[in-house]
Amino acid sequence: MNEKNKQASLSELSAFALAVAQDVTPLALSYFRSPLEVELKADQSPVTVADRQIEAAIRVKVEAAYPEHGIFGEEHGQAKTDSANLWVIDPIDGTKSFISGMPTFGALLAHLVDGKPVVGVISAPATGEYWLGVQGQPSLFGLTPCKTRDCRSLADARLYTTSPDVFDAAGLAAFERVSAKAGMRRFGGDCYSYGLLASGHIDAVMEMSLQPYDFMALVPIIEGAGGRITDWQGAPLSIMSSGQVIAAATPALHAEILTLINA
Amino acid sequence: MNEKNKQASLSELSAFALAVAQDVTPLALSYFRSPLEVELKADQSPVTVADRQIEAAIRVKVEAAYPEHGIFGEEHGQAKTDSANLWVIDPIDGTKSFISGMPTFGALLAHLVDGKPVVGVISAPATGEYWLGVQGQPSLFGLTPCKTRDCRSLADARLYTTSPDVFDAAGLAAFERVSAKAGMRRFGGDCYSYGLLASGHIDAVMEMSLQPYDFMALVPIIEGAGGRITDWQGAPLSIMSSGQVIAAATPALHAEILTLINA
Repeated sequence: MNEKNKQASLSELSAFALAVAQDVTPLALSYFRSPLEVELKADQSPVTVADRQIEAAIRVKVEAAYPEHGIFGEEHGQAKTDSANLWVIDPIDGTKSFISGMPTFGALLAHLVDGKPVVGVISAPATGEYWLGVQGQPSLFGLTPCKTRDCRSLADARLYTTSPDVFDAAGLAAFERVSAKAGMRRFGGDCYSYGLLASGHIDAVMEMSLQPYDFMALVPIIEGAGGRITDWQGAPLSIMSSGQVIAAATPALHAEILTLINA
Repeated sequence: MNEKNKQASLSELSAFALAVAQDVTPLALSYFRSPLEVELKADQSPVTVADRQIEAAIRVKVEAAYPEHGIFGEEHGQAKTDSANLWVIDPIDGTKSFISGMPTFGALLAHLVDGKPVVGVISAPATGEYWLGVQGQPSLFGLTPCKTRDCRSLADARLYTTSPDVFDAAGLAAFERVSAKAGMRRFGGDCYSYGLLASGHIDAVMEMSLQPYDFMALVPIIEGAGGRITDWQGAPLSIMSSGQVIAAATPALHAEILTLINA
């Protein structure tokens, strides 16, 4: 087999990503709403045996299918990250929701080629829903293509953030500037909010302090649904991003929010 | 039939309440995640045709079954409130979640006898779950009795509130005092948070600016699960309450929070 044949196609990678993300649903549900010991990591974020086992289960499948690919996971670290192909894993995005019994947590899986996210999956085990994004293709909510709402003005927009606690003082001031002009602001949601954005139910999500495994999977989903997702300077999200994320239903709405953030 | 026979039993009232709350699930789901015109009421809270139709459907059934009972609904107002028997209806608790596609909204139905809530239902149409509370009986999550977690200390507690925006300045200061000592604080959830409290997944919910239809159904559910729910002065919730609500998994946790609120 020559080098060319070893390069997996986007359709193969996306089918694999979706299957792997869905395969861990029973494992996630086996721990959901059961008593779990919660540890605090160095950054004070909670982690459970469920996070660790789910990521381990995903890594085993990735390593078996694509032994030469790199892996960057929230719980078990980085491997072979010099590879042009990188899998980015968040086994439970929204661990605080997960341990609270809230159904909005999700498993996130992204595939990057040369640093660019080309496949992303949000799987929500508790609701059985998923979003799939593939570079250059319409995003899917389950089997159905999904599209952002044609919301071009912040005054009409439904804005979400997971918690005011994700912001530092300057970030919170920026969020206040933006949300003061929003049609509605609301809290909670984790990765589920980005799915609702891709499906046209909300119009913007603004967060900071995120890690690459929190946002890389979102990029192909939001872009393939017609939205725009960048950092707070308008730059594409990458492994090196600061963790500031702004996602919006339309380029016009994205531009309006970006101006307010940097006002 | 004499007067005595006309007084419905708790088991009859609770079976009726549960059936009625669940009967409107298809109606709620028919509007969920579909384009809806959102109006703002005088208090700037949103309302849709779904809220109005669901409440109307519930009122028709209550009036047919118990023509002499009073009704207090969020959207269609009060009727026969001088009756010793009163039905309190919130057709969509969490309208902002509902119009955002978030599955945590719910239909709330309470039955009061002489002002005291003796039956309460939280029905979550999007997840198909419900909680039922009946005075003097263990609360149910679906068909299974549910119980709060034995959390007696705020340092161990998972604290929720729907949004920082529910508080006025003094209320927000009180929430900051309480949440600063909580094991975890988190936002979002509406009535669903109280269900998760009754099921032992979270330990406290603190809110203000609520209306009777937002909280009367919660009382039998929280109390029948072993928790405690009052206003911020520790007084029982009633139709005349101020709208400040504190719910906790145990009397000890409730007392600790109450002390901090009033510090």
